[in-house]
Amino acid sequence: MRALYVGRFQPFHNGHLEILKRILREHHELIIIVGSAQNSHTLENPFTAGERIQMITETLDEERITQRIYIIPVDDIHRHAVWVKQVESLTPAFDCVISNEPITTRLFREAGYTVRNTELLHRDEWSGTEIRKMILNNEQWESCVPPAVVRVIKEIAGVTRIQELAHSDTL
Amino acid sequence: MRALYVGRFQPFHNGHLEILKRILREHHELIIIVGSAQNSHTLENPFTAGERIQMITETLDEERITQRIYIIPVDDIHRHAVWVKQVESLTPAFDCVISNEPITTRLFREAGYTVRNTELLHRDEWSGTEIRKMILNNEQWESCVPPAVVRVIKEIAGVTRIQELAHSDTL
Amino acid sequence: MRALYVGRFQPFHNGHLEILKRILREHHELIIIVGSAQNSHTLENPFTAGERIQMITETLDEERITQRIYIIPVDDIHRHAVWVKQVESLTPAFDCVISNEPITTRLFREAGYTVRNTELLHRDEWSGTEIRKMILNNEQWESCVPPAVVRVIKEIAGVTRIQELAHSDTL
Amino acid sequence: MRALYVGRFQPFHNGHLEILKRILREHHELIIIVGSAQNSHTLENPFTAGERIQMITETLDEERITQRIYIIPVDDIHRHAVWVKQVESLTPAFDCVISNEPITTRLFREAGYTVRNTELLHRDEWSGTEIRKMILNNEQWESCVPPAVVRVIKEIAGVTRIQELAHSDTL
Amino acid sequence: MRALYVGRFQPFHNGHLEILKRILREHHELIIIVGSAQNSHTLENPFTAGERIQMITETLDEERITQRIYIIPVDDIHRHAVWVKQVESLTPAFDCVISNEPITTRLFREAGYTVRNTELLHRDEWSGTEIRKMILNNEQWESCVPPAVVRVIKEIAGVTRIQELAHSDTL
Amino acid sequence: MRALYVGRFQPFHNGHLEILKRILREHHELIIIVGSAQNSHTLENPFTAGERIQMITETLDEERITQRIYIIPVDDIHRHAVWVKQVESLTPAFDCVISNEPITTRLFREAGYTVRNTELLHRDEWSGTEIRKMILNNEQWESCVPPAVVRVIKEIAGVTRIQELAHSDTL
Repeated sequence: MRALYVGRFQPFHNGHLEILKRILREHHELIIIVGSAQNSHTLENPFTAGERIQMITETLDEERITQRIYIIPVDDIHRHAVWVKQVESLTPAFDCVISNEPITTRLFREAGYTVRNTELLHRDEWSGTEIRKMILNNEQWESCVPPAVVRVIKEIAGVTRIQELAHSDTL
Repeated sequence: MRALYVGRFQPFHNGHLEILKRILREHHELIIIVGSAQNSHTLENPFTAGERIQMITETLDEERITQRIYIIPVDDIHRHAVWVKQVESLTPAFDCVISNEPITTRLFREAGYTVRNTELLHRDEWSGTEIRKMILNNEQWESCVPPAVVRVIKEIAGVTRIQELAHSDTL
Repeated sequence: MRALYVGRFQPFHNGHLEILKRILREHHELIIIVGSAQNSHTLENPFTAGERIQMITETLDEERITQRIYIIPVDDIHRHAVWVKQVESLTPAFDCVISNEPITTRLFREAGYTVRNTELLHRDEWSGTEIRKMILNNEQWESCVPPAVVRVIKEIAGVTRIQELAHSDTL
Repeated sequence: MRALYVGRFQPFHNGHLEILKRILREHHELIIIVGSAQNSHTLENPFTAGERIQMITETLDEERITQRIYIIPVDDIHRHAVWVKQVESLTPAFDCVISNEPITTRLFREAGYTVRNTELLHRDEWSGTEIRKMILNNEQWESCVPPAVVRVIKEIAGVTRIQELAHSDTL
Repeated sequence: MRALYVGRFQPFHNGHLEILKRILREHHELIIIVGSAQNSHTLENPFTAGERIQMITETLDEERITQRIYIIPVDDIHRHAVWVKQVESLTPAFDCVISNEPITTRLFREAGYTVRNTELLHRDEWSGTEIRKMILNNEQWESCVPPAVVRVIKEIAGVTRIQELAHSDTL
Repeated sequence: MRALYVGRFQPFHNGHLEILKRILREHHELIIIVGSAQNSHTLENPFTAGERIQMITETLDEERITQRIYIIPVDDIHRHAVWVKQVESLTPAFDCVISNEPITTRLFREAGYTVRNTELLHRDEWSGTEIRKMILNNEQWESCVPPAVVRVIKEIAGVTRIQELAHSDTL
């Protein structure tokens, strides 16, 4: 059975990896939706979809996860009622959805899917918001994400990007 | 003379119906613009344009209003200066505009239309914001909307939708 | 049961009216989708969605058709796979679809709807393409459309529009 | 009085310059709309809006034309009925329109503007289509455009671009 | 060398003019990007791109600035990572960028451009936010902008527009 | 080194697979762009991006290709000049591009990339156009695509889809 897991992954962190491993215990195949794919270069969404896809792909290799996994970027659209269909047109068919986001949950339920929420792990550290804050303040963020993600963020000069974006607009 | 009445109708309530009846005393035909048509499935805009059009149509039947009324969904666009023209391209010609929304008012005035604001009635109860709050809290919202609207909201499981959308994002 | 009838109606003509009457013999309610709503001011699509909605509405009045009918403009979108969902978000729920257009037919079938094609009547005259050609050449087009449509086309100076649009581009 | 002159300028050529000079004899100010601004890198529309704006600006300097001239890129939009309003939102107010394109002519006339068509000069040579063909075939196109345009096309390697785009798709 | 100067210019004020003059001491040509071109008719962005372009053009004439200056409207796009390329497609090539806005700065730096921030002058008065507030409250805003800008704002009834937009939404 | 390979893959066929294997002999990692991702349900573009991604993924598994391969859907955009940047924002960084399409080739060259065209193999059979024609006419198309692609097309009822889409529009 194919499952669908939706997230923004700004950045992909240990909590995401943990959930992903649990899903793979019960599902043969997994589709990972890199949501809000159009966003990048803001404090809330610093990384491009391409960078996030690279983080996830290299982590999967590093973890020697060899199950069939699709990683697919999907833009937000301004017409929520159509979003599930947009996802369906960009993915193979799937049976169940994993998400903790209420709009996503509701939309997939109205479309007839089973949606499961996930237990959140180490929410104080394994959280995108917290990790972006740590990067901004030069704190120890590296232990909250898989080694591959540290590597990608360094490769793309992600720390500098976040810190420059934080300069207050002075125009 | 044809009048144009602009609203979001999230949901259509007694205040809207009252204004509509007053307009029909002075105008032979009416165009109702269901604005922000693209929005749905958020706490601020829970209902699709189709659901809102159904609410209005069934209410008009229930009230045995038989004058010629056009009910037309119009999306917001990110270029305000063009919005009036967008409306004009989706409707028959009209003579006057009824709205209480300042941007709408200003845009139609700059396009040369007469715009009339409406007296607001029972503003503490007959308000979309208040009614959505009552639905969320399982309070007595049914008396604030026409019976047809109660029926449509039940038919589409609208109460559940609003309450599920209110679950805080825990991802 | 609510049926959905999809067309471009450039312009609304006797063939459309005949089909519409047949549908209403079997369905209590009807949704008419004015497709390619964004198009106007070309030889292929001369009339705005608003003008086409007016043609249909005034014809229904003229024909004293009093069943509940929704007339809803829907834009084409560049992502076919999502179009049915777009329609669903702009209409009340419906049970069956009437269309003769193969993409429309296929998309609604894949979404699980019953789609019925219609017998075409007087195809040599009751055809949008033919009628636009007759208007262009000042031939007798008026007998191919309901009287209300003649009236609307005159009111909006539609004949002049089509003839001016036909001037070859000489830039 | 401010006039509006609409063209695609792929590329800007002697015919455009001649028309422009005539307009400036009768109008104090001129707005030049660089239409289909979004298009580039096709055989029909090889140059970006920025390149076309540069061609026109450098030609005006070269010709020592010092009247007040606005050069403004405007995208095509898929909703013709709204295009005039889009132009109006991107320009100062204007009184009359110069264009030879039928849709443009019709749209501005329906919006209440006086539209004047222009006599075409040396149509066999001073034509975008012909000039693009000459560039493709390494013929003498340079005499059909102002010297500044030759310079810009060289600076941006425009000849190579057009010739590479002409390679038939062999995938 | 051609420089690029990015701003929203809501409205164009003395601070902008001062920066512009400084840039022109070091650069032969200047491209002025009128950013967020799609916005108008809100308190934050009251003026259309066309109105802002007119303000700048008439000020340059008034100041007898005769260097080659391109004034080009550019819409925001929802995909930040692509915005620099959008600008490049609408302008001639440029060497350096002047901006104080952190996202703009970061995006142009990642694209390989030198970006210089500007010293801010009389920030308490020469600020779009402050000037819009003064207009709203009928205070002495005229001394904060060049005379040509006062003239344009009067010509387009800009004071009335801002004050009407401030009426609280009472629907 | 990471290579980028661009195609529409309507459907993915033996020629694509052959090219892909050759690329993998020289490159450690590969990004496959599923272009025109928004298109589906036409005779020219019958399959959704999701279906095409599934075809490619299952073929890679079947062929036991274990190198790191990214498969990323990218929409066409109406602004060619920005398309390379759009691709870059959806992928990890890459060094060289493989494509036979002239616009793609030109755009990546102008952006500074090395672009290599590929020798075409068995062009009379291993061609999307030919294969879609064979499916339409119930000819032996199965030998022109990998077994996994046959399986996916059967699973999604792709033959019926293509044949239904071919019914001439009779409205």
